[in-house]
Amino acid sequence: MSVPSLTLASPLKGTGYQMICKVLGHLLLILSCVQLAATAVAVIFREPVFWVFLGCAFFTLCCGYLLKYKGRNAHQIKNRQLFLLTTLSWLSLCLFSALPLYLLVPGCTLTDAVFETVSAVTTTGSTVFSGLDTMPKAVLFWRAVLNWMGGIGIIVMAIAILPALKIGGMRLFKTENSDTSDKILPRSSSLSAAIGLVYLFLTVLTGSSYYLAGMAGFDALTHAMTTVATGGFANYDASFGVYKDKPLVLWLSSLFMLLAALPFVLFVSWFKGDRHAIWRDPQVRVFLLLVFSCALVLTCYQVWHNQRGWFEAATHSVFNVVSVITTCGYASEDYTLWGNMAIMLFFYLTFAGACSGSTSGGLKIFRIQLCALLLFKQLKLLVHPKAVWHPTYGGRRIDDQLLGNVLSFCFVYFATIGFIAMMLAFSELDLVTAVTGAATAVANVGPGLGNIIGPAGNFSSLPDAAKWWLSLGMLLGRLEIMTLLILFTPAYWRY
Amino acid sequence: MSVPSLTLASPLKGTGYQMICKVLGHLLLILSCVQLAATAVAVIFREPVFWVFLGCAFFTLCCGYLLKYKGRNAHQIKNRQLFLLTTLSWLSLCLFSALPLYLLVPGCTLTDAVFETVSAVTTTGSTVFSGLDTMPKAVLFWRAVLNWMGGIGIIVMAIAILPALKIGGMRLFKTENSDTSDKILPRSSSLSAAIGLVYLFLTVLTGSSYYLAGMAGFDALTHAMTTVATGGFANYDASFGVYKDKPLVLWLSSLFMLLAALPFVLFVSWFKGDRHAIWRDPQVRVFLLLVFSCALVLTCYQVWHNQRGWFEAATHSVFNVVSVITTCGYASEDYTLWGNMAIMLFFYLTFAGACSGSTSGGLKIFRIQLCALLLFKQLKLLVHPKAVWHPTYGGRRIDDQLLGNVLSFCFVYFATIGFIAMMLAFSELDLVTAVTGAATAVANVGPGLGNIIGPAGNFSSLPDAAKWWLSLGMLLGRLEIMTLLILFTPAYWRY
Ligand SMILES: [K+]
Ligand SMILES: [K+]
Repeated sequence: MSVPSLTLASPLKGTGYQMICKVLGHLLLILSCVQLAATAVAVIFREPVFWVFLGCAFFTLCCGYLLKYKGRNAHQIKNRQLFLLTTLSWLSLCLFSALPLYLLVPGCTLTDAVFETVSAVTTTGSTVFSGLDTMPKAVLFWRAVLNWMGGIGIIVMAIAILPALKIGGMRLFKTENSDTSDKILPRSSSLSAAIGLVYLFLTVLTGSSYYLAGMAGFDALTHAMTTVATGGFANYDASFGVYKDKPLVLWLSSLFMLLAALPFVLFVSWFKGDRHAIWRDPQVRVFLLLVFSCALVLTCYQVWHNQRGWFEAATHSVFNVVSVITTCGYASEDYTLWGNMAIMLFFYLTFAGACSGSTSGGLKIFRIQLCALLLFKQLKLLVHPKAVWHPTYGGRRIDDQLLGNVLSFCFVYFATIGFIAMMLAFSELDLVTAVTGAATAVANVGPGLGNIIGPAGNFSSLPDAAKWWLSLGMLLGRLEIMTLLILFTPAYWRY
Repeated sequence: MSVPSLTLASPLKGTGYQMICKVLGHLLLILSCVQLAATAVAVIFREPVFWVFLGCAFFTLCCGYLLKYKGRNAHQIKNRQLFLLTTLSWLSLCLFSALPLYLLVPGCTLTDAVFETVSAVTTTGSTVFSGLDTMPKAVLFWRAVLNWMGGIGIIVMAIAILPALKIGGMRLFKTENSDTSDKILPRSSSLSAAIGLVYLFLTVLTGSSYYLAGMAGFDALTHAMTTVATGGFANYDASFGVYKDKPLVLWLSSLFMLLAALPFVLFVSWFKGDRHAIWRDPQVRVFLLLVFSCALVLTCYQVWHNQRGWFEAATHSVFNVVSVITTCGYASEDYTLWGNMAIMLFFYLTFAGACSGSTSGGLKIFRIQLCALLLFKQLKLLVHPKAVWHPTYGGRRIDDQLLGNVLSFCFVYFATIGFIAMMLAFSELDLVTAVTGAATAVANVGPGLGNIIGPAGNFSSLPDAAKWWLSLGMLLGRLEIMTLLILFTPAYWRY
């Protein structure tokens, strides 16, 4: 009697397994289209690398079609198999996207190619490449478009998959279309489509604004993609430092990074006519307040401590604060030179992250809020031990189970950063590089602190082992850790 | 009708207020006896400073008697007033103990005196004094005895007061004598007396062992007091580095630090005949395992990475690992020179702390265990969403409320360290000094990392503001944060 249920529920058996093939096949087909787009870019700029992209596109197409064929009879998937599906989706995307970089970029080892691709797809934006200024445009486009694909992938995952899996308190953001059910994917597709449109619209808006503000056409396109994805890949070694003399670009970029770090569901509500949805959201209010206060403190600090002008100080403070807290990771200059207070602030902001349901990574504001909520609840209980208090968040009641979700996520988040940092220290990185490297990887921010991986630095000089650990950290962070971690528990595979 | 209850429950009114005076009075009377002991030490070593100690003892005696007189009619205290009582006890102990240092030590500012005393009484053991080797013996005795008093104070607080207050999951260690009731102090006094005896016995044992291992008599006495209190004050600038050539001393010290970091209640059980109580305790097992594995890793690392001999490597690895994890804070050499991996490990161990109910500080092992427990519970729930699982810890069922207690404590612990670190960065300390300084203060360890406050360094060169913030951090850590924090909530004072 127990055998059929055993077969049905296993992550590797039944229709769910076929569904995994089908989804992966679809993903690869999309990826091959993107590779064709990169081919087109190469052709437009008359770069000989277009052959490589064309070949990769063909290879990806074949693999994608094969997988799609294998999953042709699939029609539904179990909740539990979503963990495997999500992890495999990101992994296969990374592997197939690493191929062109490995073949194209001179001196790019396999480690470098995988690191750069994982960094791109997870929208981390840490780079091991230098000499970006003279790199073929098709490669730059490829990095940017991977950022962009990663960005939309994250939002869809956060909206359609994670709430059903009850990971890290994401249940809080369950929409009507994402109720617990075995048919999540089709049901949430209309919302995903709407969000895809918003994402596209925001990208076009960002690109046009950049172009009008004086950015070159190609740079406007690629930077728009990496801004909206809060990916942070730039076309120059100096990142956004090349626009130091164009404050308008920096301010526009700050604005669009902020927008990309808000919950995209709220934009959909906005377009549907609910103009106040954004301001009603408790997460958005605290997030904006946090950005504002950090930027204000840093501006004052720079004016008084570093004797800078108010406008210049404000421009760079806002830009870099927004860039780090939205986990975008652009840098307009080396902010670690501003002073110890600034370094400490950026250190904290690296962990924070922005709003849930956006393209940003990190711990996310709502989790910090819920931790604070728990603390207030505990303080209340200490004073009035018999008091009963049912806290709410954005109108939803917070029960103990949800708090448990959130807190165990916080614990595993910091434990993961701690573990990766320990592994980095084993590779003989110093304390600051190891800790901030692990944090910037798991939070998908991009730059770390210190001389090596700071905003003026680069990940290229790190030992290979460190690059692999950082790649793992980026993937873990992107998959909200639990999704990947659970695959390593025996219970997941048992029946 | 509401007026009488309002009067009775206020922390500043009623019999509870008198009880606070009475307890503080008793404390000061004890302190004046200790000051008399320091006078005796000064007389024995023919040091002219004995006048100062005698004067201070007289002053403390007067204040103590005055307070005791004010509280002569007190007979009981409300739970809620215990927060105030606990905080005031530590504060008054610090203030009255700072006086001799301020008057005695040349060049000692008020800030330095307060820092050193807070560091002593909270058993942190960070020092702002240099030239310890030539300091009057009475001053060294005074520092050590403050450590020692702080140590017993912590255990009594952890056993008699904190469980009743439900702070940070300490409820888990409620004994039969510490049931929720308005009469905690008298009921738990027999257990406290037993623990005091164990503490005294352990101190005598440690001192005799030190003496037999070749330490000078005075050093054996003071070091025994600071070992058992896991306080970490040494009589030499080089800390236990002066015993580098006496491995027996280092091994003995490691053993006694370990013993002092075990729950003292278990020793009482042991003396009462339950010889297996210590090994049955889940906290103790994990703690010893952690110490063993860290020491093993560091020993191997030193042998292979630094080409040291096995015995020498093991001696120093065990000693310094035990010293940091038990939050004692002695150093046998500058372990930050061992390499990046060692630095990272000591960085983590700074936060950990040892067993609850011991003299050690930090997060404590049982909280880490409960966090891990929550994580396993969550992973189980992710795989089997409808599963019901009631985790236990040491035979006691862990309910959601207790987990909430523990997790909110973890949150507030790291938030406090983060806040203090930010304030230290405001005083222009660098990232590593600020973060490890805050951690070592709140965890009551002693040494930090980096060039300034590392195991080879000293807190004397820090700016005054940093010293005050660190003093606050030490007090917060010792009072399990919540006890002090709650006094800043309006609800506590409202009725
Ligand atoms: K990023
Ligand atoms: K200590």
